[in-house]
Amino acid sequence: MIEIIPLTGIGEVQPGDDLADILRGALDRCGIETRPDDILVVTQKIVSKAQGRFVALDDVVPGDEAIRLADITRKDARLVQLVLDESSAIIRAVPHVLIARHRLGHVMANAGIDRSNIGAGTGDRALLLPVDPDATAASLHRQLAMPVIISDSFGRPWRMGVVAVAIGAAGLPALDDRRGEIDRDGRTLEVTQIALGDIIATAACLATGEGAEGIPAALLRGYAVAGASRPAADLVRPSNEDLFA
Amino acid sequence: MIEIIPLTGIGEVQPGDDLADILRGALDRCGIETRPDDILVVTQKIVSKAQGRFVALDDVVPGDEAIRLADITRKDARLVQLVLDESSAIIRAVPHVLIARHRLGHVMANAGIDRSNIGAGTGDRALLLPVDPDATAASLHRQLAMPVIISDSFGRPWRMGVVAVAIGAAGLPALDDRRGEIDRDGRTLEVTQIALGDIIATAACLATGEGAEGIPAALLRGYAVAGASRPAADLVRPSNEDLFA
Repeated sequence: MIEIIPLTGIGEVQPGDDLADILRGALDRCGIETRPDDILVVTQKIVSKAQGRFVALDDVVPGDEAIRLADITRKDARLVQLVLDESSAIIRAVPHVLIARHRLGHVMANAGIDRSNIGAGTGDRALLLPVDPDATAASLHRQLAMPVIISDSFGRPWRMGVVAVAIGAAGLPALDDRRGEIDRDGRTLEVTQIALGDIIATAACLATGEGAEGIPAALLRGYAVAGASRPAADLVRPSNEDLFA
Repeated sequence: MIEIIPLTGIGEVQPGDDLADILRGALDRCGIETRPDDILVVTQKIVSKAQGRFVALDDVVPGDEAIRLADITRKDARLVQLVLDESSAIIRAVPHVLIARHRLGHVMANAGIDRSNIGAGTGDRALLLPVDPDATAASLHRQLAMPVIISDSFGRPWRMGVVAVAIGAAGLPALDDRRGEIDRDGRTLEVTQIALGDIIATAACLATGEGAEGIPAALLRGYAVAGASRPAADLVRPSNEDLFA
């Protein structure tokens, strides 16, 4: 059996806060004794907040390309400038939609930049993704001695609604490669690579919700991790490969 | 806390089998007394098998379009003909990749047609998706008196590895629409539609695995369903809308 346990009672995270301390405190307060089959899932927002990844929109001066894309997408040109600053490529820009390939490789609406639930009185602020979520996951993994996923919510082509994905991972294979395994009938498995990091991030979002509930982390207990630690960067399809394989 | 409980001991499902009986038997054998906060997740393969959705490839005569696409994709032309028969549109055809919009609306590799884990000695058979998985979910929901998701594994554009999605749902909102909700800081939530069916399907796949393990169903316990029943068809982005919003 697998359990998903919300880590409640984590207050508003501030720039400079020590996330490992905060998470250790939450585990204690929730009365959780960690086990070898625990995986910690931390939502992107508290990582970004601890890193002080806020940008005051009034400080952003949009350039020509941002103004052009803001006109197409009907978005705030300062936000569009931040998207450009955070991205290696714009994938799609149509009214109300701006999809970018974030410099980390993830293809996301608005390059993963948040404007909701980033703290009271922050109407003119945006919150960027963490600087290096795989490195943050690796650091938390070392400090807390358990596998760690950093999750974010995520829209998809062709499907309605958001799910979650892993943008950081350590202590487990974010992409679980089973190529060569044989199925029960002796055939080579058709499904050969499991997006384990995304799957665990998505499972945990049943407990953390999409932000309004204020539960920014969860423990997933009972999944037997096999395989070497691989970062969430492995979940990014190389842009020289096909869109969809 | 949320629990994901594998339903073990379900043998090979045969065409004509009564799935409600099989699932009721599995719940009994696993000693599970169902609760009002249980959701049953059933993998597509046993629904398709119960419906006898096998096709012998030797019975398929590929037409010109199938032969042309088989040449491009380097796939078996008979399989390509089945994909064409099952689809309303071909989205992408390049070497080793054939993405189609299934007649149910889901955009999937090979229109969701399986060739692994479909039973011993079935090297020349393929297994199509269920005829109407939302109807099957509705029927199981009535017979078993709990919300039901029918799940399938699913590759994604721009990301490596598979996750799961819901292709059938009843008794819960497969797309949970929270438009208009306010976040903790009084701002309207940016994330407004939750792909709840896909999220539950993905969480359950931690227990069911990707098929090789032979666990074709799981119970997800402890998630408070709110909102009216809406089918998995709601998760399909209408093709007149943008690719990605």
